[in-house]
Amino acid sequence: MSRRFVSQLGPQESVDQVFLASDKQLRPNRSGNLYLQVELSDRTGSVGARMWNANDHVYNSFENGDYVRAEGSTQLFQGAIQMILTRLTRVAAGGVSADEFQLLTAADLDRLVLRLGEMLRGMENLSLRNLAECFLLDEEFMAKFARAPAGVKNHHAYLGGLLEHTVKLMEVVLRIAPCYPALDRDLLLTGAFLHDVGKIDELSYDRGFAYSDEGQLVGHLVMAVGLLDQKVAEAERLAGEPVVEEMVLRLKHMLVSHHGEYEFGSPKLPMTLEAIALAFLDNLDAKLASFSQQLRDDPNVDSRWTAYNSNLRRKLFKGSPNGVEQTSGNTEDS
Amino acid sequence: MSRRFVSQLGPQESVDQVFLASDKQLRPNRSGNLYLQVELSDRTGSVGARMWNANDHVYNSFENGDYVRAEGSTQLFQGAIQMILTRLTRVAAGGVSADEFQLLTAADLDRLVLRLGEMLRGMENLSLRNLAECFLLDEEFMAKFARAPAGVKNHHAYLGGLLEHTVKLMEVVLRIAPCYPALDRDLLLTGAFLHDVGKIDELSYDRGFAYSDEGQLVGHLVMAVGLLDQKVAEAERLAGEPVVEEMVLRLKHMLVSHHGEYEFGSPKLPMTLEAIALAFLDNLDAKLASFSQQLRDDPNVDSRWTAYNSNLRRKLFKGSPNGVEQTSGNTEDS
Amino acid sequence: MSRRFVSQLGPQESVDQVFLASDKQLRPNRSGNLYLQVELSDRTGSVGARMWNANDHVYNSFENGDYVRAEGSTQLFQGAIQMILTRLTRVAAGGVSADEFQLLTAADLDRLVLRLGEMLRGMENLSLRNLAECFLLDEEFMAKFARAPAGVKNHHAYLGGLLEHTVKLMEVVLRIAPCYPALDRDLLLTGAFLHDVGKIDELSYDRGFAYSDEGQLVGHLVMAVGLLDQKVAEAERLAGEPVVEEMVLRLKHMLVSHHGEYEFGSPKLPMTLEAIALAFLDNLDAKLASFSQQLRDDPNVDSRWTAYNSNLRRKLFKGSPNGVEQTSGNTEDS
Amino acid sequence: MSRRFVSQLGPQESVDQVFLASDKQLRPNRSGNLYLQVELSDRTGSVGARMWNANDHVYNSFENGDYVRAEGSTQLFQGAIQMILTRLTRVAAGGVSADEFQLLTAADLDRLVLRLGEMLRGMENLSLRNLAECFLLDEEFMAKFARAPAGVKNHHAYLGGLLEHTVKLMEVVLRIAPCYPALDRDLLLTGAFLHDVGKIDELSYDRGFAYSDEGQLVGHLVMAVGLLDQKVAEAERLAGEPVVEEMVLRLKHMLVSHHGEYEFGSPKLPMTLEAIALAFLDNLDAKLASFSQQLRDDPNVDSRWTAYNSNLRRKLFKGSPNGVEQTSGNTEDS
Amino acid sequence: MSRRFVSQLGPQESVDQVFLASDKQLRPNRSGNLYLQVELSDRTGSVGARMWNANDHVYNSFENGDYVRAEGSTQLFQGAIQMILTRLTRVAAGGVSADEFQLLTAADLDRLVLRLGEMLRGMENLSLRNLAECFLLDEEFMAKFARAPAGVKNHHAYLGGLLEHTVKLMEVVLRIAPCYPALDRDLLLTGAFLHDVGKIDELSYDRGFAYSDEGQLVGHLVMAVGLLDQKVAEAERLAGEPVVEEMVLRLKHMLVSHHGEYEFGSPKLPMTLEAIALAFLDNLDAKLASFSQQLRDDPNVDSRWTAYNSNLRRKLFKGSPNGVEQTSGNTEDS
Amino acid sequence: MSRRFVSQLGPQESVDQVFLASDKQLRPNRSGNLYLQVELSDRTGSVGARMWNANDHVYNSFENGDYVRAEGSTQLFQGAIQMILTRLTRVAAGGVSADEFQLLTAADLDRLVLRLGEMLRGMENLSLRNLAECFLLDEEFMAKFARAPAGVKNHHAYLGGLLEHTVKLMEVVLRIAPCYPALDRDLLLTGAFLHDVGKIDELSYDRGFAYSDEGQLVGHLVMAVGLLDQKVAEAERLAGEPVVEEMVLRLKHMLVSHHGEYEFGSPKLPMTLEAIALAFLDNLDAKLASFSQQLRDDPNVDSRWTAYNSNLRRKLFKGSPNGVEQTSGNTEDS
Repeated sequence: MSRRFVSQLGPQESVDQVFLASDKQLRPNRSGNLYLQVELSDRTGSVGARMWNANDHVYNSFENGDYVRAEGSTQLFQGAIQMILTRLTRVAAGGVSADEFQLLTAADLDRLVLRLGEMLRGMENLSLRNLAECFLLDEEFMAKFARAPAGVKNHHAYLGGLLEHTVKLMEVVLRIAPCYPALDRDLLLTGAFLHDVGKIDELSYDRGFAYSDEGQLVGHLVMAVGLLDQKVAEAERLAGEPVVEEMVLRLKHMLVSHHGEYEFGSPKLPMTLEAIALAFLDNLDAKLASFSQQLRDDPNVDSRWTAYNSNLRRKLFKGSPNGVEQTSGNTEDS
Repeated sequence: MSRRFVSQLGPQESVDQVFLASDKQLRPNRSGNLYLQVELSDRTGSVGARMWNANDHVYNSFENGDYVRAEGSTQLFQGAIQMILTRLTRVAAGGVSADEFQLLTAADLDRLVLRLGEMLRGMENLSLRNLAECFLLDEEFMAKFARAPAGVKNHHAYLGGLLEHTVKLMEVVLRIAPCYPALDRDLLLTGAFLHDVGKIDELSYDRGFAYSDEGQLVGHLVMAVGLLDQKVAEAERLAGEPVVEEMVLRLKHMLVSHHGEYEFGSPKLPMTLEAIALAFLDNLDAKLASFSQQLRDDPNVDSRWTAYNSNLRRKLFKGSPNGVEQTSGNTEDS
Repeated sequence: MSRRFVSQLGPQESVDQVFLASDKQLRPNRSGNLYLQVELSDRTGSVGARMWNANDHVYNSFENGDYVRAEGSTQLFQGAIQMILTRLTRVAAGGVSADEFQLLTAADLDRLVLRLGEMLRGMENLSLRNLAECFLLDEEFMAKFARAPAGVKNHHAYLGGLLEHTVKLMEVVLRIAPCYPALDRDLLLTGAFLHDVGKIDELSYDRGFAYSDEGQLVGHLVMAVGLLDQKVAEAERLAGEPVVEEMVLRLKHMLVSHHGEYEFGSPKLPMTLEAIALAFLDNLDAKLASFSQQLRDDPNVDSRWTAYNSNLRRKLFKGSPNGVEQTSGNTEDS
Repeated sequence: MSRRFVSQLGPQESVDQVFLASDKQLRPNRSGNLYLQVELSDRTGSVGARMWNANDHVYNSFENGDYVRAEGSTQLFQGAIQMILTRLTRVAAGGVSADEFQLLTAADLDRLVLRLGEMLRGMENLSLRNLAECFLLDEEFMAKFARAPAGVKNHHAYLGGLLEHTVKLMEVVLRIAPCYPALDRDLLLTGAFLHDVGKIDELSYDRGFAYSDEGQLVGHLVMAVGLLDQKVAEAERLAGEPVVEEMVLRLKHMLVSHHGEYEFGSPKLPMTLEAIALAFLDNLDAKLASFSQQLRDDPNVDSRWTAYNSNLRRKLFKGSPNGVEQTSGNTEDS
Repeated sequence: MSRRFVSQLGPQESVDQVFLASDKQLRPNRSGNLYLQVELSDRTGSVGARMWNANDHVYNSFENGDYVRAEGSTQLFQGAIQMILTRLTRVAAGGVSADEFQLLTAADLDRLVLRLGEMLRGMENLSLRNLAECFLLDEEFMAKFARAPAGVKNHHAYLGGLLEHTVKLMEVVLRIAPCYPALDRDLLLTGAFLHDVGKIDELSYDRGFAYSDEGQLVGHLVMAVGLLDQKVAEAERLAGEPVVEEMVLRLKHMLVSHHGEYEFGSPKLPMTLEAIALAFLDNLDAKLASFSQQLRDDPNVDSRWTAYNSNLRRKLFKGSPNGVEQTSGNTEDS
Repeated sequence: MSRRFVSQLGPQESVDQVFLASDKQLRPNRSGNLYLQVELSDRTGSVGARMWNANDHVYNSFENGDYVRAEGSTQLFQGAIQMILTRLTRVAAGGVSADEFQLLTAADLDRLVLRLGEMLRGMENLSLRNLAECFLLDEEFMAKFARAPAGVKNHHAYLGGLLEHTVKLMEVVLRIAPCYPALDRDLLLTGAFLHDVGKIDELSYDRGFAYSDEGQLVGHLVMAVGLLDQKVAEAERLAGEPVVEEMVLRLKHMLVSHHGEYEFGSPKLPMTLEAIALAFLDNLDAKLASFSQQLRDDPNVDSRWTAYNSNLRRKLFKGSPNGVEQTSGNTEDS
């Protein structure tokens, strides 16, 4: 029987299928009886689940990041779908179809890696091309880069999210650069490629997503500079001549300034054309991804507005499904 | 004899040619003698000029916005070129080649207007196309729209600057929209077209640039809503049916929120995908224009950095002329 | 039997009377059983109510904004009165005494409308008087203006609240203006009248209070400018001559700047005497209303302080009921 | 011959009359020759004056705060009147008509003191009346209170300015209090009386205006609390019974919170009705005084806008002299 | 049987011993049944406790601040230990060993008072020594000063916390002053002694900790100035000569500016060397105490990070118990 | 003849001695004649100098950073000493006594380097000691570290300033650490040593002080991490075993967070005890140095206050020379 995805679940459904477990907790209810609370997800989203009268046994029978078979039923709780579990059993990863749990399939990731290489190898600047090649040829790096999420919550928080965000940003760079001849396209493209590479070690994403200690104590803006230093040394060894110092400085500057403002953790404000462009386009891509996701996932299906988002200090307007086109569509037919 | 443009002037040159005058003032020097201070410009920039021992007569012989024949010589003053005038005479506009005084030629403006129409008429949404047509057919509006600057100082502060900024922004929208399918391309394109239309009356630009009273007291974000209301009414009369209300709301929202933050004068934060995209792309275009201009015009020719800009709270990095490519260029040949 | 008002309810009372229903929700409790949560109000306040073991049937038997007969009893919950319902039935509006549910009676509203007209018609400035008359004669406008609340929560959030806030502000203007001869009294009075008129469409208040889409996307500061434009055109038609342009600009400026600071959604800072006075007096009236209401309604009856209000970033001091006068009162008698 | 006041001076006038001197400086010009720079004022304003080729002798012949006879002529300098002195001689205070140098005449001050007493003695609250009486009977206090300015620059920066600001604020309180029955009128009135009393020692105003060391190190908000403590003790001795503690606390709270926000130097936010009302009304009075003064004194007589004021982060709109009434005036005649 | 301290409690333990009660509340659960919620503490910390099916009787049988005998058992609730009570009985203070409930023993406090006197009497500046003596000899003052906490929550929130914080700060002053010869050591030491004395009346700490009305309405920064004024007058009476005015001003300035920034409630910014040093060292001591406490008390024992602290806008890094030394320790042995 | 230092210069003195030149400019005066403007300094400070009727010849005869013999005389200009030059000649560095131009003598620097090594080698933690040794043994590093200033303007802006600031901070750490047992003293000491090492390349200080390109584009917080990485690798090679990873993370965290707040350029907030202590103590040392220098150098010798400092948003209080001790001094004698 084909899977019923999280995004398809309605109230009052029976459920008996495999999910990815995370954020498990054992809590007492008001009467002092313990229950299990756990997040169950597949590639389309996640849903909160509770097992009443749970105990240490079930709590200890699986870890966050494990696949579990969940049996029970759904109900509506404060406007959102919730699952009430009758049984929860750990399942070996082997018997599971990974594609059901990853937003991006292996094929998606392959395609993105291919496109990444294509764009980088298409640069005219030989020096940058050589530098990029050092990253592309580093299999350990590429394995992480193709797997890491772009964040723990917020935008692109799924396996491969970093790669998808990076490639999208590079596509945008290629399209916009011709509009602004003063921009050094290849420099901006390389900056877009590298701006978040620090995240491959800032985050841990083997079982659930979290910040690594280094990620929290040092941060991906600074960590990326160390990665770049290594690859520059490598490129110089390969080319047998030094990479132009100013080019490296401009790249480092893009890495440390790409959050755009001090308050967002950039130790430097963007001071070059490419740095300011990178900061805006990165922010635009992140905001569009985040807005889109909220508009799509908002649980208040009969409201024209999403719930208030305190991070963004605003609600978002959903409006009517086809609010803009409806009349004009009719008119066009006539 | 061909014109020597402001951007070409060096120290210790004799000058005898026509400029556009602005910001004239009569001031006493430390000894109490009056001198005339005036800005002289052509399409490449402006230069401060002084006539020592000036009097009311010369001060009253021309107005800001007039063409004047300036005779005298240049010198270096605090790192910048300054003109010392021996004579200043008003010149009729008739005998002047306007192209020498406008950054954008009549041909440039024609081309931009053409492209504007092309993009708007290429929209698939009939309703938005009809609305846009009401603006395009309004000759008085288009005359102002093709002439207005985008600002008094800052970015695109020259005749036609509003049109150039708008068309550039629309080009960017057309290139980026395909990357983000969730964006309503036509809605975003129309928002880009209209976001600054309030500036046609916010600024006065017949003789020198200034804010109109209405511009300062009400502002172009609010004024644009009134213009839109008029054109919507017109479009409804022409089409014989109401424009979809939600579409108008979405457009108005883009107009009042396009500065992106309360502190920049937006009474609303962007709450739709198109509004957030517009705010970012508008800001990006403005920042790139402003950064480019500062990098190009910075008078400290032998410094790798521009002077500190207190608005941006930073200096900009100019670096070496070909800092990034130099070595790679050589290498590529081998 | 006479009504027992919300403000009179104590713990452990039986209840069987009519209330206005709002904010109904169906929620599961910890055991997964559904219960109904609804706000019940009359003109003296509102009280939360719950019906255990509720179902879709009762949830769908009434709408927010309906009158309902509530049967059950009260209890104390976290320091506040709560109602436990045994039965809830929709009641036709016809059989209800509306005055029990509106803070302002029809007579109150009539009196306020009368006073509004009196103040506006008492202005010496003929042009402003004509303009005001266009609003007063517009029955549809006046019907909305006399019914709209001034907000969804916060201050004056009840039917007629906008009118009451406006008239109070105008009274204050009339009293204060003589202290400051530099103020144009009539201009300030008209600004006070119009400052919040945009709220008649910013809010929806037929069944419960909410922001309209236009209210959230465009906002009452901008919407008011459109209303003013219409009435100015009307006044010009009636008078057969244009209204002085500067006067209209000054009014528009008061409308768009009356929140006083960018961060409160004003796209312009007050730049005239009347605009700065309006911003301060409006804010003062709102703050006094809000403080008074909190001091009056705070549920911690035995504390000298209200609960912490995170919007205001402070607690308020209630002190002793007659803390200030007690001794002096005694002394005065002797 | 009657005095020609500073506000009446035009360019190219000869001058020979007495002024109050302040802010004297001896400066070298570009050629290294010294000149004297000094501010000359009377009750209508002040004007900058320069004596070329001055020396130590003239610089040492008078002190800031002295009356001086100034001989010379006026000229226009950067849009403002400036005086060029040929001679400057110290003049004994005895031979000078003090009223020409004080914005407020002795009669004005008498009238204000009278009104102050009237309002305070009209309070119904005996305890506050007794407390106020302790201030009114303290001759040393009243002498300072009637003489102190309300500031060094900004609003009400002239002898008697504190008294004038205080009495105006109390008038406003008396007019507004009836609109808000929840306000304790007498408490608010006493708070308005006392809110700035700390300024009698925060500022020094015997010769020119300046902050005292205590004023800068401790500040008038804190200093006022000490003054109040003394008078409360006095009132208790006189009345033979303690003043109600809560009343004193409420007064102290009004004193320390009346700047309204932390960033303006209030160590506490207003937490009572009277404290919030005092903060708003004080700010309103200060802003109206400051705006009025700028609109009146702006030297750009032919501009519809004042110069940009960086403290207020805005320009102010002057508009046309009778911009609002002109047409309506005509219309009214017909 | 020896006491089991709060910090030693694990899940699933039976409990039967005495605690200090605070923050008691009677609440209904979802089914409408009332339960008692109360905080139970000893000198090592506090733990939340609940008694199901409680009633008015038990709620009224003790007051906050009383000692109670608690019988029941512990469980884990959302990662923290919680107590479920079966019985709760008030206990007379007489039979309780106070040292189990105070973080600081009587001996600790005696030692701190001794050290305080030692440091103050060791000052070289006679005038400051005399002033300090007036405080030390005031038994009522010293009794409060040795008992007051330094806060209600946050750092040093326990009996004697103010004394401990003050003495620690003075120790730091004595150690650091020699590094900065420009600092007046005795002035800084006196400032450190007095900076928080206002807290003896700002807080109430007889039964549980709370802010007094005066504390909230006026604040300890301002209240300290009044205390200082009294003691200066006393010192002058004793010495028969005035204390140098500037010294008093410098002390007052340290008191009112020691929060360092307006936003933290300082009405003045530090403007002397001693004031800026005091502000930094006070803040450092508070932050170290607060960080240490969070690192020590964080309930997530198996996490390397504390929970997010919204006041500090960060998590804290706990790391490994001996993360830094482990290898080096091994190495050192070899 | 012994040198007359800048700090000793009064008005109307003849001058003929050697200074260090910086910030030279050629400027026209109001009459269009050029003059030379240059800063002349020795170890006690700097003074502005002007040579009237200067030309390209003298301007090109020396570079910033050269020693020059200056002949001329001093005068008072706007309250400050200024030099008017009659002659200016470049002088070879060889014939100059360097100690007259450096605030810190070679002996001072030697002493500081010695003390630095002493403190680092006194650490108990072997691993940190090894790491520190790698820095101490690196002669190129130490040469730069002993020569670099700590800033371009502000505090410790002189050769050796970085070393002096670092050693002072470490002294403070050694004195304070025993007060806070929870602090890891050796970790904090190493952090204090390394916190500003990035400045050795952030600044250029061979001829005058400036930021390097890398300093401005990347910044010393990030650059220090790179330096640390190199030395850790070196230490691991030497020790033949890895340095504990957590220790390195804690050090890196201290480097990137030591500005304490995002707005001061820290990409991370301090999240460990040592990081928060470092940030406070570093800031304290910088503020005390900056305050001391302003109090000492303020040119208004007869004022009790320094001029307003817009960076600090305050004036500083100088008071009386012996304001605090004067009376007590007398008293102590009796």
